[in-house]
Amino acid sequence: MLGTASAMPVSDRNPSAQALQVRGRFFLVDCGEGAQRSMVRFGVPLQRIDSVFITHIHGDHVYGLQGFLSTIGMGGRLAPLDIYGPRNLGPILKFFLSYNDWIGYEIRFHPLEMKEPERILDAHSSEVIAFPLRHGIETFGFLFREKEPLWNVHKEAIDRYGLTLTEIGTLKRGEDVLREDTVIPNAEVAYKPYVPRSYAYVTDTAVFPEEIGWLKGTDVLYHEATYLEEHRDKAVSRQHSTTLDAARVALETGAKRLLIGHFSSRNRDASLYEAECRTVFPETFAVSDGDVFEI
Amino acid sequence: MLGTASAMPVSDRNPSAQALQVRGRFFLVDCGEGAQRSMVRFGVPLQRIDSVFITHIHGDHVYGLQGFLSTIGMGGRLAPLDIYGPRNLGPILKFFLSYNDWIGYEIRFHPLEMKEPERILDAHSSEVIAFPLRHGIETFGFLFREKEPLWNVHKEAIDRYGLTLTEIGTLKRGEDVLREDTVIPNAEVAYKPYVPRSYAYVTDTAVFPEEIGWLKGTDVLYHEATYLEEHRDKAVSRQHSTTLDAARVALETGAKRLLIGHFSSRNRDASLYEAECRTVFPETFAVSDGDVFEI
Repeated sequence: MLGTASAMPVSDRNPSAQALQVRGRFFLVDCGEGAQRSMVRFGVPLQRIDSVFITHIHGDHVYGLQGFLSTIGMGGRLAPLDIYGPRNLGPILKFFLSYNDWIGYEIRFHPLEMKEPERILDAHSSEVIAFPLRHGIETFGFLFREKEPLWNVHKEAIDRYGLTLTEIGTLKRGEDVLREDTVIPNAEVAYKPYVPRSYAYVTDTAVFPEEIGWLKGTDVLYHEATYLEEHRDKAVSRQHSTTLDAARVALETGAKRLLIGHFSSRNRDASLYEAECRTVFPETFAVSDGDVFEI
Repeated sequence: MLGTASAMPVSDRNPSAQALQVRGRFFLVDCGEGAQRSMVRFGVPLQRIDSVFITHIHGDHVYGLQGFLSTIGMGGRLAPLDIYGPRNLGPILKFFLSYNDWIGYEIRFHPLEMKEPERILDAHSSEVIAFPLRHGIETFGFLFREKEPLWNVHKEAIDRYGLTLTEIGTLKRGEDVLREDTVIPNAEVAYKPYVPRSYAYVTDTAVFPEEIGWLKGTDVLYHEATYLEEHRDKAVSRQHSTTLDAARVALETGAKRLLIGHFSSRNRDASLYEAECRTVFPETFAVSDGDVFEI
């Protein structure tokens, strides 16, 4: 958690930013002002970020981007950087580059404009799905998912059956091995090395019915909870979520854990937000800058 | 001191920014990323800033500006804001406004292009002088000066001599009062309420001969000292100052106190910089974020 505040500056939190490590890759999700300093402070390796995901271009989600892009350039980066974000991020990146033509790496911008969930990154063992949110300007949420792994074959079974490489390949794909005289059932000799995990990042948004279906089965859900229930009117007019909005999404999607952030500067005590959510969804945690969660 | 680091992000310092209170007015000098959070943290009233002075457009001096401008706009600011900076800051402000047309206050940009010191702000009791620095791209230093105050007249003298309003006005201008039969000497009945103070902000720059004359008599000098002496080669090639460069400027201008900052991230221990400066100029202080100095 690199930044957990909302738009107005506060002394003890940076605006929105998170770093995510997924099977050896590092992602940066939103990049509010001060994100790069948080990365240094909390030990996130800036140069190893290979993809950046920006929800929307409100300042508290994007004003740290130019600093991050400059810094990795000054650090001698040559590896290309992928940036996923709404279309109106394009001119911002273009303007940045017009003032920073010395940068030695390529910025590959991927403008988002989907109306329903769409896979935007398809890696060997993980994938990222983007989906639209409701916040007045174009805003997107992101679902990070490990892919279903191949089956592993028990070592002792290889010896016992004298499995060939072709047969091991068959088992890794989840199929049974069919020999002339016998069948070696996959279930007997192979196992899944891990259960795929998933993490969703949902901010800024008013809640809306489709997100329940889109986020069904997500293990850990980060959902903004900008306002306490008493300020529901503000949440509605500004297209944000309240504590109970976020808690109900967690409950209805079957999440194992709910992380909340983006707290309004008018109520600074995060435990108030947490307590309200827990009346609906007990496994809620109000996050602070520097928090680390393992899924 | 809102930010005292140089360009590479470090965990314990923000990049360059300072707030200055001059006879009731608040100035912001440079605005590196995170400046607004430092202002909140250290109690600088954001909305009372009436003028911003930007030395140059390298990111560590200007990437906090958009956040600051947004935040005071969100806070409902209506009062105009004056921004002084190099000409290439103009398109940056223009681009910012093209994305933030909701802002309710006027930004008055004053492009700087002087080749020698020039007064850029002429207030009732203070003034600001800008002057060019040497840093590869257009860069300016700023000298903040209280004006020579009018003379005050001792209260008891008003009664003793039965001074008229006209005569008091004469005395306030520093002149003697000439009556038909006598002279009331200014020196006997009037006094200066304070000695004008001055503060210079000099970053980023290689040292150059003219700055000695331009800064002569400055009370407190903030001068960058990016490098320890052992890295003088880097200071020369990147047009920065070393510790002893800064100390010699303080010595030769007759400063009462030297403040140093903008320390390279390769040597994080500020006491090393301070110790080197003190071999030449004992009244040197390495500044930290949150430090407050009264002149």
